[in-house]
Amino acid sequence: MLKDTHTEPTVGVVEPHTVKLNLPPGGFRFEKGGVLTEIEVTYERCGAIRPENDNVVFICHALTGDAHVVGMRPDETEPTGWWEGMIGPGKGIDTDHYQVVCANILGGCKGTTGPSSINPATGKPYGSSFPKITVGDIVEVHRLFLRQIGITRLAAVMGGSFGGMQVLEWLIRYSGELDKALVIASAANLNSQALAFDIVGRHAIVGDPNWNTGDYYDRENLPDKGLSSARKLAHITYLSQQLMDAKFGREKRPEWLTADPDFRNDIDRNFGTFFQVESYLQYQGEKFIQRFDANSYLHITLAMDEYDIVERHKTLDAAFANISSRVLVVSLSGDWLFMPEQSEELVTALLRQKKQVSYCHLDADAGHDAFLTHIADLKRVVKAF
Amino acid sequence: MLKDTHTEPTVGVVEPHTVKLNLPPGGFRFEKGGVLTEIEVTYERCGAIRPENDNVVFICHALTGDAHVVGMRPDETEPTGWWEGMIGPGKGIDTDHYQVVCANILGGCKGTTGPSSINPATGKPYGSSFPKITVGDIVEVHRLFLRQIGITRLAAVMGGSFGGMQVLEWLIRYSGELDKALVIASAANLNSQALAFDIVGRHAIVGDPNWNTGDYYDRENLPDKGLSSARKLAHITYLSQQLMDAKFGREKRPEWLTADPDFRNDIDRNFGTFFQVESYLQYQGEKFIQRFDANSYLHITLAMDEYDIVERHKTLDAAFANISSRVLVVSLSGDWLFMPEQSEELVTALLRQKKQVSYCHLDADAGHDAFLTHIADLKRVVKAF
Repeated sequence: MLKDTHTEPTVGVVEPHTVKLNLPPGGFRFEKGGVLTEIEVTYERCGAIRPENDNVVFICHALTGDAHVVGMRPDETEPTGWWEGMIGPGKGIDTDHYQVVCANILGGCKGTTGPSSINPATGKPYGSSFPKITVGDIVEVHRLFLRQIGITRLAAVMGGSFGGMQVLEWLIRYSGELDKALVIASAANLNSQALAFDIVGRHAIVGDPNWNTGDYYDRENLPDKGLSSARKLAHITYLSQQLMDAKFGREKRPEWLTADPDFRNDIDRNFGTFFQVESYLQYQGEKFIQRFDANSYLHITLAMDEYDIVERHKTLDAAFANISSRVLVVSLSGDWLFMPEQSEELVTALLRQKKQVSYCHLDADAGHDAFLTHIADLKRVVKAF
Repeated sequence: MLKDTHTEPTVGVVEPHTVKLNLPPGGFRFEKGGVLTEIEVTYERCGAIRPENDNVVFICHALTGDAHVVGMRPDETEPTGWWEGMIGPGKGIDTDHYQVVCANILGGCKGTTGPSSINPATGKPYGSSFPKITVGDIVEVHRLFLRQIGITRLAAVMGGSFGGMQVLEWLIRYSGELDKALVIASAANLNSQALAFDIVGRHAIVGDPNWNTGDYYDRENLPDKGLSSARKLAHITYLSQQLMDAKFGREKRPEWLTADPDFRNDIDRNFGTFFQVESYLQYQGEKFIQRFDANSYLHITLAMDEYDIVERHKTLDAAFANISSRVLVVSLSGDWLFMPEQSEELVTALLRQKKQVSYCHLDADAGHDAFLTHIADLKRVVKAF
């Protein structure tokens, strides 16, 4: 996803840490079946850490995010966190007052145990034997992790998109342990069209002959084409039609007129075009396969697609009945993946249940990604809350 | 695409015919380069044929359509044309008054010469050697064909979606030979997001190892996965978000609860779901590979993506300056692939050029496909025009 450039104060160097969870006897039982006897969680932590551990804001990252929400890694000279503009001294989440903790999600590929992790029983990656995950599993693992590092109460849980679904699940399960919850550009479940995009993306991965039912880690060729295809498709949904037209339109790459014949022939042979938007999508696909694992993408998108508060609790009202935290819901005007109407449904259900809820519909033409890329307004709203 | 069921009068049996074009000396020169010395065109013709041949309505079919616009094939007992509701006795195009001609497009795979046709020079399918096509090439081949069967003047040219682009090109090139032109759910060029969907679809095909740079016709395995992926993706864009929610929502297939363990395991292993929308997309993909050729899909979508009246003529006004035909433009409210705004741009340019243009914006929540599936209003508008 794209980032604004900025020259604002940052939290400085943040180092990742990994803890091995003290699991209950018998291991961690997955909601849909399956058990793991070992789970590690990788996390980052920064900001004003008080001895009471009572000023922690836990950030739930989105689909392909990671724990590196803010700051620079020890070997970096520039901050590279994915929510740099939101978190830091004086920012939306003010690290002079809050300590920020973010942990990679279960099933991912950024340190927390996932399908590419080594199965201690075999010494090989889990691959196809990794249990299917749910949003509930992700939240339970994060809660076990937080308790293990001494955090039993959160000042806030906050997340956008799939991160917002995790926040909703925190609220439903453990509202008594949270003061506030911030649900940004999210929903109680995905709409049919959003499901469809994920489905076509997963088909591309499982249809890649290199996927091999998920057991590809010892092979020379990975299911990169499928994963890249899924990512390119997803990127279309992250931007609004207006932003795509404004950003790329039908513009051609500058090399359109000066490309050498070999390059031009290659484009021609592969039915490529010189449209900027093709170059952008190609770049997003190629960048993604360098940093993400196909099995993780399958597991996490499936957990997102199957997440459905209404299906599980019959009604939003029933799901929200026991919430005691203060809730902020934010929607983005140009978001066609997690529609503003879906945020409004959350809000009206919370209001019906007489909960303390604030709602902000931001004028953000950029689309779903605006929660990462166009955050001036969002930062103000979060700070005020 | 979906069809309404109907019990209306039909044109009866319509047989396809194929003619070999009398090409100019040296063969047919493609706009982007390349020559073919043999071109065949497959077409269908029905309705009130007058000896003067002056009541012909030529139908330009859409991306994956074909000449079988209306009626039943000799071996069929039910009409199977793709625009059955629009054309027939007393319908939008009244076959008691007009003869209707529809021909498969150049580059397709339904009879008219395309990449899967036999190259007479080699005795093998063209495959990768087939020249790249443009909308202009498609129109020129259709015009050669019409003249060859004795039609030099058209009562109307009509088409939706990519067919509408062909109508626009007819207007720009040969308005003097057309009385009327009907441009439905179309545009002077695709917007950036529509380009993006086509690009990801083409990447899926050329990324399929069975594509083999287009030379796959003698192989056991065809690039079906890539083609199916492209089709599934395209189908998402043919329906509005509202229709997808109304039609599928998050409903699960009835077999969700009763599926036998093997089937359930297969779904589970391949990260499938029981959502109806997955079943629908899967079906669309599987159906499509039975009837369409991957190379044709690449050629035709590329021609659509590159079609750009504004780029070629600098302005719409310049492109439309010499039009003498009466024009009807129709847009669909729920269409997010060919946006109503894009139809309005056509209309305002035609009005600035003081052309005879009628515009109708139909309330059609279903999305782009509504020009095929929800045509009660469209039929009335066409009939009136």
